[in-house]
Amino acid sequence: MLPFKVVCCNCGKEARRDEWRWQDDCGGTFDIILDLQGRKFTELIDAKEENIRRYAQFLPVECLLSVHQGWTPIVKKKISGVEVNFKLEYLSLGGSFKDRGAYVSAARAKELGMGGIIVDSSGNAGISFSLMGLLSGMSVDVFVPKYAPEGKKNLLKLLQANVHEVNGDRMDVNREAIKAEREGSVYVGHWWNPYFIEGEKTMAYEAYEQIGSVDYIVAPLGSGTLLLGLYKGYEELVELGVLNEMPRIIAVQACGYSGICQELGARKECVAKSKLADGIAITDPPRREQIVKAVKRTEGCGVIVEDEDVKESLVELRKLGFIVEPTSATAYAALEQSVKAGFIKPGSKVLLPLTGSGLKLVDELVQIGAN
Amino acid sequence: MLPFKVVCCNCGKEARRDEWRWQDDCGGTFDIILDLQGRKFTELIDAKEENIRRYAQFLPVECLLSVHQGWTPIVKKKISGVEVNFKLEYLSLGGSFKDRGAYVSAARAKELGMGGIIVDSSGNAGISFSLMGLLSGMSVDVFVPKYAPEGKKNLLKLLQANVHEVNGDRMDVNREAIKAEREGSVYVGHWWNPYFIEGEKTMAYEAYEQIGSVDYIVAPLGSGTLLLGLYKGYEELVELGVLNEMPRIIAVQACGYSGICQELGARKECVAKSKLADGIAITDPPRREQIVKAVKRTEGCGVIVEDEDVKESLVELRKLGFIVEPTSATAYAALEQSVKAGFIKPGSKVLLPLTGSGLKLVDELVQIGAN
Repeated sequence: MLPFKVVCCNCGKEARRDEWRWQDDCGGTFDIILDLQGRKFTELIDAKEENIRRYAQFLPVECLLSVHQGWTPIVKKKISGVEVNFKLEYLSLGGSFKDRGAYVSAARAKELGMGGIIVDSSGNAGISFSLMGLLSGMSVDVFVPKYAPEGKKNLLKLLQANVHEVNGDRMDVNREAIKAEREGSVYVGHWWNPYFIEGEKTMAYEAYEQIGSVDYIVAPLGSGTLLLGLYKGYEELVELGVLNEMPRIIAVQACGYSGICQELGARKECVAKSKLADGIAITDPPRREQIVKAVKRTEGCGVIVEDEDVKESLVELRKLGFIVEPTSATAYAALEQSVKAGFIKPGSKVLLPLTGSGLKLVDELVQIGAN
Repeated sequence: MLPFKVVCCNCGKEARRDEWRWQDDCGGTFDIILDLQGRKFTELIDAKEENIRRYAQFLPVECLLSVHQGWTPIVKKKISGVEVNFKLEYLSLGGSFKDRGAYVSAARAKELGMGGIIVDSSGNAGISFSLMGLLSGMSVDVFVPKYAPEGKKNLLKLLQANVHEVNGDRMDVNREAIKAEREGSVYVGHWWNPYFIEGEKTMAYEAYEQIGSVDYIVAPLGSGTLLLGLYKGYEELVELGVLNEMPRIIAVQACGYSGICQELGARKECVAKSKLADGIAITDPPRREQIVKAVKRTEGCGVIVEDEDVKESLVELRKLGFIVEPTSATAYAALEQSVKAGFIKPGSKVLLPLTGSGLKLVDELVQIGAN
């Protein structure tokens, strides 16, 4: 494990490393800053491991669970004159990319002496945290909106989570989850939690080892952990001298939840608010400013997609063999738009993570009628 | 591609290679016999491919789809004094080990000029064939019992299969599927189809490359394609001189569907017929004799498991991080029984494929109440 600091993104103050905190006194989010000490990438990876522990040195935690995690396959396809590298993040134990963040966060909470973790999500994050909590012997409290589908609550219960149903909207659920913090049980929600991003960044290391550098990344943007994780991973690869420059990040939001993309200059006449891309239906994520900065630094852009495009993309992706959830398809829709708009140049190389499995929500996919 | 023959298991007669047939005139099933020509394993594999095409030389088909397939992770765990190697076959595009067999079969049907494939299964095989048909541009007709769960039929429709519901039992469904054969569309059901086994055998090659030799394999037994595929793969590894001896195969059947295990000497006072292990609820598979011979040749045995054991095993497996379907859990239940009975010796090394994803049937898992 390399030395690291926990720093507030807002006021820049350093926080204590030996306690779990999800928010600074000033209201800011925390980041983990790694001291790479001028070391070499190849000398820091554990090449015999074909899983996330290959990058244990880069993770701010001493002791990692020995379960399989990461090292997801990449499938290369030529699409509209561009080399698209699909990273199959959904082929993981919990069926989504969120397993990475939950894996690192749960390990860190455990080694800080916690006996329980608390999270607000009825979707992929809830599943990933329930699974990682179960694996590491911690209790898991998951707060979900009362209106969340029974199937999702059931999966959480199967994974032995304590499911709490909250009347109200997504923000009410968030408030209840935070209020539930108590001695030995901490809030690990991915909107705030900096360890989550540390897990996600390993996707960038893997992609680099699998296919070398890329010119663009197309990533769905909800709370921003995927995007910021990839940004951080590539940033460290540049700092390590492994890559010369950052790939340009294309952030993808859905109609009705596109504030950040609008700030990045994206324009779209939306017909209706998205009902499909529930994984990224977040109006105002706490890390908003950080996300905008990251995309701008890479000279990236924002793309807003409509449900009709998502529907079509779901079908296209299945024709390529990928049974994924609608949120994953937003990135594919955005890819096509970006190529058409000339933002992605012909012949370039794109990384496109497929974030979540469609097997979890076959009924919903059928309701969408996209076949 | 190495030279191969298509031979009837019953009368030993060789069949023409240039036409698709699922049954010999004498009523027997066909096998593919590869001519290994004294070649070396390492010289035959394509080491740069980390997927099933690594073993293209060993597959009886010229042209394989470039989709991701195979190279599933292995997770090693010490359980009851035994080294258990879980092969996560369910982390594949269609969510089960059947993708391998369907991948090779669809490619072969396509190169024999077929425009469509026909299959009888509402479960994993139906999904795998629908996916591979979609990917290779062939029409897929899936025959299912009328009583099959809506969710399963819906997934098949999402994958653009033509779903035909049949009144009657599983055998009626099979008859209707076979009757549907027509010019350009062939029956590829895995109970008979020899190319399916060729796909499954690649699991053995992979396991060998990942963890070397094993002492035992514990495999759920339905129609026998998993078991015979593993048998064939290891048999070829022995013939190639890579391994000195075959692992002992432990075949696992569920109460009420345990004819083969009984023939192998297994005894169990069953309380009730299994309702959980639907993936292996097959009373009299066409390859029965071949399966019995294979298990006996390896000095293996049969184990019969009860639904109560399957339920417990599902919970145990989830605690290890594996969200799988009940059929996968039969193997885990059998492992524990075999260790207790002293058939599996302490300190030995076991391969245990986890065959199908539980994400497809969360509602069913909840109904089982195993949490």
